[in-house]
Amino acid sequence: MIIYLDNAATTKPDKDCLAIANEYIGEKFYNPSALYAEGYNLQREIREIKEKTIALIADNEKFDMIFTASGTEADNLALFGGCRRGNLVTTEGEHSAVYSCAKELKRRGIETVFARLNSDGSVNVDDLLSKVNEKTSLVSVMHVNNETGAINDINAIAAKVKAKNPFALFHSDGVQSFGKIPTKLTENIDAYSVSAHKIGGVRGCGALIIKKSAALMPLIYGGGQENGLVSGTENVFAIKCFASASRKRHENITENYSRVSELNSTMRNLLDGKLFKIISSRESSPYILTVAAYGVRGEIIMHEADDRGLVIGTGSACSSNKKNRYSRVILSCGLSEDIADGILRISFSPDNTLEEIKKAAEILNETVKNRAEKMS
Amino acid sequence: MIIYLDNAATTKPDKDCLAIANEYIGEKFYNPSALYAEGYNLQREIREIKEKTIALIADNEKFDMIFTASGTEADNLALFGGCRRGNLVTTEGEHSAVYSCAKELKRRGIETVFARLNSDGSVNVDDLLSKVNEKTSLVSVMHVNNETGAINDINAIAAKVKAKNPFALFHSDGVQSFGKIPTKLTENIDAYSVSAHKIGGVRGCGALIIKKSAALMPLIYGGGQENGLVSGTENVFAIKCFASASRKRHENITENYSRVSELNSTMRNLLDGKLFKIISSRESSPYILTVAAYGVRGEIIMHEADDRGLVIGTGSACSSNKKNRYSRVILSCGLSEDIADGILRISFSPDNTLEEIKKAAEILNETVKNRAEKMS
Repeated sequence: MIIYLDNAATTKPDKDCLAIANEYIGEKFYNPSALYAEGYNLQREIREIKEKTIALIADNEKFDMIFTASGTEADNLALFGGCRRGNLVTTEGEHSAVYSCAKELKRRGIETVFARLNSDGSVNVDDLLSKVNEKTSLVSVMHVNNETGAINDINAIAAKVKAKNPFALFHSDGVQSFGKIPTKLTENIDAYSVSAHKIGGVRGCGALIIKKSAALMPLIYGGGQENGLVSGTENVFAIKCFASASRKRHENITENYSRVSELNSTMRNLLDGKLFKIISSRESSPYILTVAAYGVRGEIIMHEADDRGLVIGTGSACSSNKKNRYSRVILSCGLSEDIADGILRISFSPDNTLEEIKKAAEILNETVKNRAEKMS
Repeated sequence: MIIYLDNAATTKPDKDCLAIANEYIGEKFYNPSALYAEGYNLQREIREIKEKTIALIADNEKFDMIFTASGTEADNLALFGGCRRGNLVTTEGEHSAVYSCAKELKRRGIETVFARLNSDGSVNVDDLLSKVNEKTSLVSVMHVNNETGAINDINAIAAKVKAKNPFALFHSDGVQSFGKIPTKLTENIDAYSVSAHKIGGVRGCGALIIKKSAALMPLIYGGGQENGLVSGTENVFAIKCFASASRKRHENITENYSRVSELNSTMRNLLDGKLFKIISSRESSPYILTVAAYGVRGEIIMHEADDRGLVIGTGSACSSNKKNRYSRVILSCGLSEDIADGILRISFSPDNTLEEIKKAAEILNETVKNRAEKMS
């Protein structure tokens, strides 16, 4: 039995997804853009899902929801659809889904600046605000940092950004917070990205929750689905799984938060302080615990743990074909390359058990101890 | 029991998709970009799927495959990723997934021209070639027209395009041909879009089959998946369903072609020639039969047929929120607005039975006859 502690990369889909597959892949497979009843009924279901999902975290009179194929695509829609002139202000802590878009916008001639991070991976708000000016068209600040778990107070930051420039759009990548950190978006947030497969849904469904007043350019052109912003036949099955997972996670968001906090604390306490440096601050999201092994590469520990049935991540597991050895975000926190070399990301789900955490800590302590002994 | 004859819009997923859901949603849910064995093994499966799928229609030494979230996204990748200067030559018959990209490229300053159609919806090759010049960077010609079923001989057209300008990329939207029309792509084809949910796969997976030598710009930026062209965690479940459906459809492509041809001929013969004009030519793909009812709007027939358990399409069912009453493509075939008003698209699957076709023809004949009598 595998102990799975890489839930910030992807979660095991909730068991309801298989029942939804039976119904929406096996039977209700119709095209929601079709005008016959079988299609139209699905379109109505999608509309209802949007209203109910928005209501979980925002005022659904003021916000709309655009389904995308992934959280990455939602970030791309916000960045490319929302920033077409002036300058873009974002942070050094962003997930590559935002960071790479910012780099590409820079290449296309948009003035792009990256605010510095505090040592826990949260954004340095003073530095961010100093970069916002009258030419700023978009500000993008992630809600929960995917590598350290640091939480940015996006409502407060957005209010300060709007005070400096009320016309700047404010976007936040909420992929690591949605369904995990109790949140109510104020009207200062113009766009908020979420992803289904990080909370028990399936791959193939992300969304951008946007202010109805926000005018974005399309990302994917074609049949005009999703208000013309993301064309392509609606992925009803994945949307239904997203709706189910979102509802469940929000119904239990407080209990889950407490439960995961306990798992996180247990892991912090059980990891041997002589072998591991804890990177994530106590104020971080409890769903992510980033640590660094002293003197042993994270990748080596990850592989040895995997051999013993424990799955954990190293840095941002969402990124493939890394050219760089060290995490850009970890270095931006002011940590040394030695520390960056030993980084492990342990990320929890409410379905993990205390027994799993105890076993996992034992495996990690033993692995690093053995390696360190071999090397000395 | 519904008779489903809108298979060009979307097909009922093959029953294997539910078994694949059990395995890849229920168990093998890992992130293929992760470096631990559970993730890496999925990455290897995806690589094998690509090699086997390419081999079905092209030389897999020369071609690569980029997974997207849909056929629409594959078209967007080809158009925006492949056309960054000079001019774009495409056709008036393209699906909106290509046509809308072409319009957007025009807005961005790319010189964009649309070749005329023949009366069956195929492209007028002389007109197309007359528009290709030394500045042409991309030519996009669909393989099978989604509204009339007309087949363009893309290998022959691509050869002529390359003779005029060997540096122009040649793209073809193969969404209505892949798995249906036996095809071998020559090396004159640089990019070919396919979609899973048109052949028994599920939503959430399309692909662009590209020449290894073709250099495209990314469409979705982020973690660098799919050779950096389409970032986002790989949708393994949808990819596995695509692989299974592609394999099955190609194993039976000749038998399916014959079988669907018989269904198509039966429908042609049974529809009352006094009530319906057949639009699709005999040389069209047998999977699509487009007809026009004389004097009755297609939408009315579609709804009445739906009430009697027959699902058919009107024009391009993939398009939502149509602003225009008449199909752009049907008018480009030189047909009148009266004819365009009565358009119905009947599209087949190898799973349809002769009994279904006979019943469907009966429903359509009766519906139009009753309507015509009421109106006279």
